[in-house]
Formats: sequence, structure tokens, C-alpha cells
Amino acid sequence: MKRIESPQNALVKHWKKLVTTRKERDKSEEFLVEGFHLVEEALKHEGIVLTLMVREGIELPAHWSTENVHIVEINNAVAKEISETEHTQGVYAHCRQPQHAEEEVVSWKKLLLVDAVQDPGNIGTMIRTADAAGMDAVILGKGSADPYNPKTVRSAQGSHFNIPVVKGDLFERVSQLKTAGIRVLGTGLQNAVNHFEVEPQAEFAVIVGNEGSGVDPGLLEIADETVKIPMYGKAESLNVAVATGILLYAYSKN
Amino acid sequence: MKRIESPQNALVKHWKKLVTTRKERDKSEEFLVEGFHLVEEALKHEGIVLTLMVREGIELPAHWSTENVHIVEINNAVAKEISETEHTQGVYAHCRQPQHAEEEVVSWKKLLLVDAVQDPGNIGTMIRTADAAGMDAVILGKGSADPYNPKTVRSAQGSHFNIPVVKGDLFERVSQLKTAGIRVLGTGLQNAVNHFEVEPQAEFAVIVGNEGSGVDPGLLEIADETVKIPMYGKAESLNVAVATGILLYAYSKN
Repeated sequence: MKRIESPQNALVKHWKKLVTTRKERDKSEEFLVEGFHLVEEALKHEGIVLTLMVREGIELPAHWSTENVHIVEINNAVAKEISETEHTQGVYAHCRQPQHAEEEVVSWKKLLLVDAVQDPGNIGTMIRTADAAGMDAVILGKGSADPYNPKTVRSAQGSHFNIPVVKGDLFERVSQLKTAGIRVLGTGLQNAVNHFEVEPQAEFAVIVGNEGSGVDPGLLEIADETVKIPMYGKAESLNVAVATGILLYAYSKN
Repeated sequence: MKRIESPQNALVKHWKKLVTTRKERDKSEEFLVEGFHLVEEALKHEGIVLTLMVREGIELPAHWSTENVHIVEINNAVAKEISETEHTQGVYAHCRQPQHAEEEVVSWKKLLLVDAVQDPGNIGTMIRTADAAGMDAVILGKGSADPYNPKTVRSAQGSHFNIPVVKGDLFERVSQLKTAGIRVLGTGLQNAVNHFEVEPQAEFAVIVGNEGSGVDPGLLEIADETVKIPMYGKAESLNVAVATGILLYAYSKN
């Protein structure tokens, strides 16, 4: 087994940059996952894991299939260097970002469209929620946090490997969905109907928006309808990931 | 206006401890809020704000009613000392934790019961969600994060001032609810029905549980029914705050 002991090693520097900078992730179309649960999820999907990094002394679970995976042993110094958490489990996977061809993208019929949601934890929770609700994919528009930010990856709990997550132009995507006859529901307060008044349909897209300013009014204009979640108490709004869960489960019940 | 310039001042030490230690918050039944939005929310409720702390040079919004509030000017050093965030807005309120007499507690008919949810951000988001859904109160059982942790307060976005949040013994509370004829729904996977198969009732309680282990089986045993949110995709579970939103909105629709 190959062994790396220096934090100055070029590969270690690349891994660290994958953890700390979006630029490195965007350029290489790669990312890093950390911890037993996420690494196990990554390993279940062929072609995702480029390298498995294991700190010396750590034993890998016997049920992991690692035959086709390149494994590198690292020492404590390297493990600390590439870790995003305070108490690292010492197991990491250097992964490819899954790619999706345009013909696949246009085949999706149940979509979560995310307009400029900035908190990486919110984005991760929304990816996990869209997976749970059986959506076909998540499309992240301009201004959204990087889906491969370590915080996003951690809060998505492995759903990155279950559901496609792609960046895209939401205006183009909404137009394409409408041409395909798929209903697009925006979320907002003006000219909005209560979310439960809209009957579920098998194919639909929901647009959720920025934590402070909501969905771009231009997007709401081209959406088929604007829905709102009623506030029965005194709160002004819901967390965007919670709102996403309420909406997706209201519409994917059938 | 009184002015405090030394981080060594006894009051400053108390404020800092309110930010950093649960023990200080529990003992004093006080907490600190930071930032314009939260301080404004606190000021709207009589008897909550003990002292308003304002960094020198900061102008308070004209619409704030601060006649009956004790205001202290602080310098930058003190502001930094008591701040929980990197870029502080320089406005803080030293607050009383709202208290609720037992006769008020037993009058609540729509309750969110929280069993050992550990993440402060999750607890805050759940308080905000329970407020939005029009619940009467949130009861936090043993093992749950402190509702007055600064992270909890921040993610609740002011809902602490809109809805009672109390600590309590969930076993006692469930027994009391059942005696009062109020339906108690646990959440879990075993012997569970899909959440949307349970008809909404005007009075109800929902128990949600720990991020890893879920609701205590003993509590599920005494609950009237166990419900689950179906997983339509490949995710194993939902974030507990998202699950709370889906359940509360499914049952509080009427």
C-alpha cells in the first residue's frame, strides 16, 4: 500500500485545497468526503472514488468493497491537514463530482430548483430532503452555495450519491420545463396561494430562494403559480430547508 | 448613559458566561441575544430585556421603544468579548428567560415534544418551525440542547419570544396529555403508519427524537400512535428539523 507522510506532498496539497476552496473543486470537478458513513456511501457508487485515504492504525470495515479502489495510508499529520472536523475519524475519499449529460438533464420530471440559497448547511439539508422525497434532481442556480462544500456534503449525509445535483441557469430550466408541460411552482408571498391548495401532480418543479430575499421576482413571473406556506403563529418565515421539506412532501405524496 | 469599557467588569464577565456556558444560563435563568433583528424582537416583549448594550458609534433604529430599558454603552473591546459572531453588529440584549407556571403548561393543547435532540441549530430551527405552524409550545426533554445556546437563539430567529419553550419530563407530559384526551404521535420506523394516513385533529402532540437514535422506545410505547415519513428516494432519513416541519404542517392544516 502506498503511504504518504508529508503534508507538503503535492497530492495532500490538492486534497486540502479541495476541502478549503471552491475554485479547486470547480476546476478539478472533484471533492473530498470524510468519515465512515460518507466514505461508505461514496464506495457504493462505481466511478466516484478516486482514492481512499486511511490514517495508520485505522481498520476498514470488512463489508466495504475496496477491490477496485486505490488506497493510500496517511499518517496523523496528513490526516489533520486534510480534515474538516476537530475529531477526525481518519477516513477520507477523494471523489469525482458526478457529471450529467444534457439529455439526462432534460429527462428529469420532478425537480427542486434552488435560487441563490447561500448557507452550505441549508443546501446539504435540501439535497437530503429532495432525495428522501423522491425528486429526480436538484438544480442550483446562480448565487447558491457550492454543493461540494464540505459542510454541504456533511449535511446531505450521502444523498449526493443518490440524486443528481447540478448547477444551471434557472431561467432556461423553467422555460424548458414549461415547454415540456411540467408545472413550475415558485415560492413567495405576493399573489401566492396556500401550498396545500395546489393539487399534487406526478411531474412538477418547485423553486425555493435565498434566505433573506426569497426567489428572484423574474423567476416567479415565468413560473406557473406562486405558493406560500401559511404562517399560523408569529414567525415571519420558515428556514428554507424546512420549507423545502413541507413543499416537496405536500406534492410528492402520490 | 452608563458606559462600560473594561472586559474585566463583573457584568461583562457575566454576559460572556451567558454566551459561553449553559451553567451560567441555567443558574441565572437569563441569556444574551445579539444583532439588530433579535434585539428588536426581544424589545417587543415586555419584561424580557434587562439591559440593552450598544457599541459606541452605533445608532439605534428610531422605531425601537427603549423608554423602559436600561441602556449601556460599551466600547469595541467589550463588544468583542461578549460577541458570538465574527462580524458583530454591536447590539446586544441581556434577557430574562421567559418562565411559565404549571397551570399555563397544562393548558397547552398543541405541543412539539423534543426527545434528546442534540444540535443547537436543529433545536432553534424546530422552535421557529413550531411557532410558524401555530403550536402552543415546545417541550424539551432530557438530553436536548439548551434552548438558550447562542446558536439555538440565532437559528430560532426570534421565535423564543413568540412561543413558550420549556424543559420537562416527556414521560410525565405524555401521560398528562393522554389523561387530557389529547392525541400523542410518536415518530419512528417500527409499527409505524405513514404520517399522512393520520387525520389532523385540533389538539395533538408530536414527539421527535435524537438525530441518531430517534425517539426513546419507552416514549413510543406510551404514545397513541407511531408515525413515519415515507422515504421515496434512497435517503435513510430526514434532518429532524425538516421532519418536524413536515409533520407539524401535515397536522395543523385545519
